[in-house]
Amino acid sequence: MSVSMSTAAAPLTHLKPSTASQITAFPTSLSRPTSRPLSITCSSTTLQTPTSAATDRVFNFAAGPATLPENVLLKAQSELYNWRGSGMSVMEMSHRGKEFLSIIQKAESDLRALLNIPSEYTVLFLQGGATTQFAAAPLNLCGPADVVDYIVTGSWGDKAFKEATKYCNPNSIWSGKSEKYTKIPNFDSLNQTPGAKYLHICANETIHGVEFKSYPTPAGENEVLVADMSSNFCSKPVDVAKFGMIYAGAQKNVGPSGVTIAIVRSDLIGHAQPITPVMLDYKIHADNSSLYNTPPCYGIYMCGLVFEDLVEQGGLAEVEKKNVKKGSLLYDAIDGSKGFFRCPVERSVRSLMNVPFTLAKTELEAEFVKEAAKEKMVQLKGHRSVGGMRASIYNAMPLAGVEKLVAFMKDFQARHDHA
Amino acid sequence: MSVSMSTAAAPLTHLKPSTASQITAFPTSLSRPTSRPLSITCSSTTLQTPTSAATDRVFNFAAGPATLPENVLLKAQSELYNWRGSGMSVMEMSHRGKEFLSIIQKAESDLRALLNIPSEYTVLFLQGGATTQFAAAPLNLCGPADVVDYIVTGSWGDKAFKEATKYCNPNSIWSGKSEKYTKIPNFDSLNQTPGAKYLHICANETIHGVEFKSYPTPAGENEVLVADMSSNFCSKPVDVAKFGMIYAGAQKNVGPSGVTIAIVRSDLIGHAQPITPVMLDYKIHADNSSLYNTPPCYGIYMCGLVFEDLVEQGGLAEVEKKNVKKGSLLYDAIDGSKGFFRCPVERSVRSLMNVPFTLAKTELEAEFVKEAAKEKMVQLKGHRSVGGMRASIYNAMPLAGVEKLVAFMKDFQARHDHA
Repeated sequence: MSVSMSTAAAPLTHLKPSTASQITAFPTSLSRPTSRPLSITCSSTTLQTPTSAATDRVFNFAAGPATLPENVLLKAQSELYNWRGSGMSVMEMSHRGKEFLSIIQKAESDLRALLNIPSEYTVLFLQGGATTQFAAAPLNLCGPADVVDYIVTGSWGDKAFKEATKYCNPNSIWSGKSEKYTKIPNFDSLNQTPGAKYLHICANETIHGVEFKSYPTPAGENEVLVADMSSNFCSKPVDVAKFGMIYAGAQKNVGPSGVTIAIVRSDLIGHAQPITPVMLDYKIHADNSSLYNTPPCYGIYMCGLVFEDLVEQGGLAEVEKKNVKKGSLLYDAIDGSKGFFRCPVERSVRSLMNVPFTLAKTELEAEFVKEAAKEKMVQLKGHRSVGGMRASIYNAMPLAGVEKLVAFMKDFQARHDHA
Repeated sequence: MSVSMSTAAAPLTHLKPSTASQITAFPTSLSRPTSRPLSITCSSTTLQTPTSAATDRVFNFAAGPATLPENVLLKAQSELYNWRGSGMSVMEMSHRGKEFLSIIQKAESDLRALLNIPSEYTVLFLQGGATTQFAAAPLNLCGPADVVDYIVTGSWGDKAFKEATKYCNPNSIWSGKSEKYTKIPNFDSLNQTPGAKYLHICANETIHGVEFKSYPTPAGENEVLVADMSSNFCSKPVDVAKFGMIYAGAQKNVGPSGVTIAIVRSDLIGHAQPITPVMLDYKIHADNSSLYNTPPCYGIYMCGLVFEDLVEQGGLAEVEKKNVKKGSLLYDAIDGSKGFFRCPVERSVRSLMNVPFTLAKTELEAEFVKEAAKEKMVQLKGHRSVGGMRASIYNAMPLAGVEKLVAFMKDFQARHDHA
């Protein structure tokens, strides 16, 4: 195979998502034990010898860590060894050097633009996942004797509630557990606690596929709504001003695992309980621009590349349109299957990110997952606590992935529905 | 430039460090705006057109995040887009999938081999840096009324001590602060507290360049020695059995920032204080093999590549020999400069990882750092709290880097000593 390494002519830096599918023949098989030179081209239409690299990529429906934009991965690959002439990898950079400062500052700036974050909100890049915030939120936002309210619409909201019992007096004012977490409550019927310091929700339950489409107004005088947005962060526009705090693990929509982003109304910072570990104290991180100690630099860099990509796509309104299209396609396929496929979630609150579904013939579910994997659609097995299937279709899942899944579902049904 | 993409014939997977210098012409400049195809070769001696990639790499003396092995970076680059035929990046993998499980299990296995970790010790891959462990250690290893002892040999040991005051009764039984943290105490003279639950040390002070060469025996009945080894982890063999717990941020010797490794004697696990955040509870992580929530997967993968590299180098005894050689070269240059360069640290406890030094003519220090950077030796400025210079020469700093620095120091002295 001959080689035309014309990537140099088409800087990956400026690739738009729309061209990403054209560069999938990047060398991904360097470790393949063959003595023949590898045929490679990364420019638009000059692919001389189709390799298996493009088709080697699977559609990854994992709930997180999850699929990332192909052009972001290729850009990261091109820069991994030597970031933009710095002579080193981003992984090797001092977090206090000018190179990394430019990276984290651009990441924050792009995120602020995407979510239109008001200036009175502080953006923090943290570690430890949303699970760390389950403790950090009460430790920072209330005292040990304070009452706070939790709406529990799934497993993650329940975990957040339970962790808070260590640090304050949380009330679970609504739980969907008895209905297997398939609903969101009517906000008017909520029995909020007068004087509650905040109201906590999980904006999208990754396991159960239940998503808030609008938000309740907290009863407390400060109107502090706290939302775990891990699995629908940056999937659509959000009015940040309605929240006291938004937090999200990055590994669903905006980056690799190991980075947690918190957006906190600045007046809520600086009141941490005395037992708060220094690494869980928002004031420490706010005062040090997320550089109190060494942050997860490479993860932040990756988030920055994703933010840049989302900006280039036209922002979150455009991103939401794509997500609505993908979600509709999949839910329509389920609902149109005459009961062969079923989604247990109430229609009005179905998640556009995580789509759980079952087969009426449950004995076929294992086969469904196995056959799909053979067709390069992987990680479709449902969470171990729920069973069935789950297709996570975050921002970076291409429409083609959902189309392929829907086609496969129809084919699978045709082959099994007569039995 | 023509292209010979013969990497496929020389799998990076099996590259030994000794060949790393031969593969520095890997495509690092994909984003370079030139219309000419890029000349690339990754095989041993067939480099047809020397590119600037090899010489573009700087010697990075940063204290952490720090330089990583060149062959590890190149391997990571080759695998970034598609890990070993999985059809996805390591960053996209479910942490519960078989691919990532193989990665984290191999990382632990190689680390156990390197440090000869006894079976009664648990290895945890955590987040939040050593700073999080400053809280987690007391929260897990003692009760709120317990006394613990801290030997404070530098800024990091002092931070650990201060954080512990939130969770127990720590005694600072020795502090080197009045002597500007240039010493390690004589162990016989230590006034340990009877009944102390543990004795805490910082095995290597990154900022001050002070390193324990042997370890004190704790007085408490359980003989629990706790060591922050962030900046000399895996730089030499360590008898793990002497410790109750060893913890280390990865970003000095073994990986990128965002991963913290804890090696804990298993009988010490399971006694966390009730206020311990779930993410700081060692039992939670031990019971779930570091997969209670989503771990920092890509960072763990990188650590695994570094561990593999250290094993291939012949293990930590061999690594220590190289570090001794590098350290001796640099300290000899300082000591042989007739006072032009000075290292404030007592000779017997000088760190082999972080070498702080000053100029007798302090007014030349800024020029020294600036000129060195021009010669592609970067991040030599001392910590802002200490001043002067600091050369961090971790495992991955090549001997050539120290040789170049020493040559530069001699040249700089020759040009300025007569003044």
